[in-house]
Amino acid sequence: MSKGESRVAGMTAKENLRPGGRSARVQASVHKAVRELMAEMSRADVTIPLIAGKAGVTPSTIYRRWGDLQELLADVAVDRLRPDMQPIDAGSGKADLETWAEQYAEEMSSGPGREMIRDVLAAQAGANACKCSEYTRQQIDVIAERARARGETFPDVERVMDQVVAPIMYRILFGDVPATKRVRDLVARVISTTD
Amino acid sequence: MSKGESRVAGMTAKENLRPGGRSARVQASVHKAVRELMAEMSRADVTIPLIAGKAGVTPSTIYRRWGDLQELLADVAVDRLRPDMQPIDAGSGKADLETWAEQYAEEMSSGPGREMIRDVLAAQAGANACKCSEYTRQQIDVIAERARARGETFPDVERVMDQVVAPIMYRILFGDVPATKRVRDLVARVISTTD
Repeated sequence: MSKGESRVAGMTAKENLRPGGRSARVQASVHKAVRELMAEMSRADVTIPLIAGKAGVTPSTIYRRWGDLQELLADVAVDRLRPDMQPIDAGSGKADLETWAEQYAEEMSSGPGREMIRDVLAAQAGANACKCSEYTRQQIDVIAERARARGETFPDVERVMDQVVAPIMYRILFGDVPATKRVRDLVARVISTTD
Repeated sequence: MSKGESRVAGMTAKENLRPGGRSARVQASVHKAVRELMAEMSRADVTIPLIAGKAGVTPSTIYRRWGDLQELLADVAVDRLRPDMQPIDAGSGKADLETWAEQYAEEMSSGPGREMIRDVLAAQAGANACKCSEYTRQQIDVIAERARARGETFPDVERVMDQVVAPIMYRILFGDVPATKRVRDLVARVISTTD
């Protein structure tokens, strides 16, 4: 798990912004400027000087902190990909996972979802992509914990990542929209082969 | 399968270049210029005018045909992702799949592999990403056919995509390098649950 640990360490550096500190305020203001500009114009027209102007910071502040536009876009995208709720409690591990997976497939295959994934993956540094998959893993963890608390057996989280999350994401990225039926089959399979 | 069919139809338009025709020669020359420039300089410095100059065509020829730099890079990348050999015959479906999957994981997680995937996925039009996953599917098809010809049972190709290809690709894109042990486990699982 040294890979996973270094990932978490990498994340911490950025996340340990003192809330309300200068650094956190710059980040919030720049993120807000990016979101507003992306809503107003085509993303191809969004530039660092434009963002800086809107955020009230100098372009060099942005370059110093994010390196380039793609890293900044990835940073904003991963923030929007952070789940804002616990997975719905649908009564059983299987039902929870099914509900969660259908919603995940729907959100990620939507126009904005695809754009966010593309931004996260386009950045050279992989830190944001890792963070994104970490968010997903945490959601599955919650479902798994809840299932165990009910006394159910539930597959290993990594196996759910491999057999449910990965196929959904692969099909979204490489051309298909995973149909609800397929998502349910993936869930049914991983649950039925729990060992 | 209407999605799959339209994908194939979309591909055909581009692939039906008359070999040796003007269009095919322009494509070959532009692709070659891109590959050479990418070998010489950082990809961030590669521009359409530079490519045009090296390929001996006008920039507008490139814009007309590919739309933008990202589409052109995706087109070149997918060309390099086309497998140049049949999957190795290792004596059984399981051994073939294991050999193929290990090689796939290794190639795709290498520096150039990651760069090619990133280029394919960064393009707005998804046609190249579909083509890329189609190449993979064809390789699995060959392995499946060979297994059937030997009288073995072999899982459905879509299930191999979901349970072997997708997890490998997901982990490469979202931060892990899939270890050989994990790749073997994925193969063992899909083979053992063949129904």
